[in-house]
Amino acid sequence: MIYKRKLAKVIRSSKSNLVIGLDTDYDKVPATYLRYKNPMLAFNLKIIESTYDYCAGYKINLAFYEAAGTKGIEALEETVKAIPRNRIKICDAKRGDIGNTSERYAKAYLDNLHFDSITLSPYMGYDSVSPFLERKDKLVYLLIRTSNKGAEDFQTLRVGKKELHEVIAKKSLQWSESQTGFVIGANHLKEIKKYSSAKENIPLLIPGIGAQGNDLKNLMKNLHNKLFLINASRSIIYAGGVNETMTTYLPKVISAANELNQLIKSFRK
Amino acid sequence: MIYKRKLAKVIRSSKSNLVIGLDTDYDKVPATYLRYKNPMLAFNLKIIESTYDYCAGYKINLAFYEAAGTKGIEALEETVKAIPRNRIKICDAKRGDIGNTSERYAKAYLDNLHFDSITLSPYMGYDSVSPFLERKDKLVYLLIRTSNKGAEDFQTLRVGKKELHEVIAKKSLQWSESQTGFVIGANHLKEIKKYSSAKENIPLLIPGIGAQGNDLKNLMKNLHNKLFLINASRSIIYAGGVNETMTTYLPKVISAANELNQLIKSFRK
Repeated sequence: MIYKRKLAKVIRSSKSNLVIGLDTDYDKVPATYLRYKNPMLAFNLKIIESTYDYCAGYKINLAFYEAAGTKGIEALEETVKAIPRNRIKICDAKRGDIGNTSERYAKAYLDNLHFDSITLSPYMGYDSVSPFLERKDKLVYLLIRTSNKGAEDFQTLRVGKKELHEVIAKKSLQWSESQTGFVIGANHLKEIKKYSSAKENIPLLIPGIGAQGNDLKNLMKNLHNKLFLINASRSIIYAGGVNETMTTYLPKVISAANELNQLIKSFRK
Repeated sequence: MIYKRKLAKVIRSSKSNLVIGLDTDYDKVPATYLRYKNPMLAFNLKIIESTYDYCAGYKINLAFYEAAGTKGIEALEETVKAIPRNRIKICDAKRGDIGNTSERYAKAYLDNLHFDSITLSPYMGYDSVSPFLERKDKLVYLLIRTSNKGAEDFQTLRVGKKELHEVIAKKSLQWSESQTGFVIGANHLKEIKKYSSAKENIPLLIPGIGAQGNDLKNLMKNLHNKLFLINASRSIIYAGGVNETMTTYLPKVISAANELNQLIKSFRK
């Protein structure tokens, strides 16, 4: 099934546009998990089990798994497998490399680990993205307007009458309209409005809600299609405290996921 | 020791400006290595042992190790340790993420694995680079002008009177002059000339010689400082054939490394 269709179906059946970021930090996993052979994995499995009713999918930021060496990679591989089939699995890689190397990444994350989509940096151009587009059922979320402060350093440079991010967005849609999505930070309402319009109808992946703290109501007012995913990571998975027991920790995670999900729904047109 | 000083020292003592890319592909490792528990690692150890006399260091492209799962990460960790202390260790990561995540990467690759430097994509701006710069003995090689075809898609866009890559280069030197190096493809002679000039004196990491096949003589004519590293990967580590024995394979690797190193030296001013 092509990604856009799967995404629409999952959003409909899960009744959710929330994607939970498993930015699992080895140092922040509650102490109670440290008794497991692989605490990251044990933690993730519990988070997924506790939250999948309140989200459309999960986003896995590779940095956190790489930082933990072989145990992290083991946790990564087993975590992806544990995500229910009827949920979206996003590989948050944010990389871009020459074709030869991009093919390696595509094989590793889209073929072997069965992620549905991947985030990529556009700076190296078409051949850094094309190996991913060759997987016809997958989608590439390109970094267009990121939510961090440094986003203003280069993304808004004037290129003719446009800003750099607009030029990149336009060009990337020429590469593939059906397999391209955009990462747009929740603070960039103008772009969110534009790309979610009926005319564009681009799948958006939106970070910056939750720990990064932007205004959800305002965001939702500017969202015009249904193909969006709002990401929250730390505000959900670390809703409890490091020294809590599982019995008190997990209900807080569930509440955080449920509440954010309900809030998104309540603002949805 | 700060990176620029270490780099200058290593280049002097090794009498080499060659950096060998350990783009070790699980599928291309000679059949003779498949009997080892970790063929990638066994292969890398032999490559390092055979070639360190002919190079200033090694560049490890993470994609190839991630593609091989936990065995790949094990190979990565052990490979870095096996590189002699008096050689440069470059982590070829080509990523860029928000500060929180970049800090994870910095910890994983610069602190834990002791890489001397890392390649990064500039698109997300200052806070995606700053965690790496906080490690005062390390250097960041920013992707400025890459060697691939897609480099022309965005890197050469006009921003005022300049091209995008020039604006990024200038800005990044304001972030840190002492800890910034540039990745410039061997096909971009104008930029190589500019940034290696006495005035700029920026450490350059130059891919695109070897399998990507650009003209070494012309490249060398345009290089004006001594802080450059020319990378070759596939043309050296796969100099032998998949079905050869170690006895015939490794001498070909040694020859390829030695010949390219000699050639670089012969053209050096």
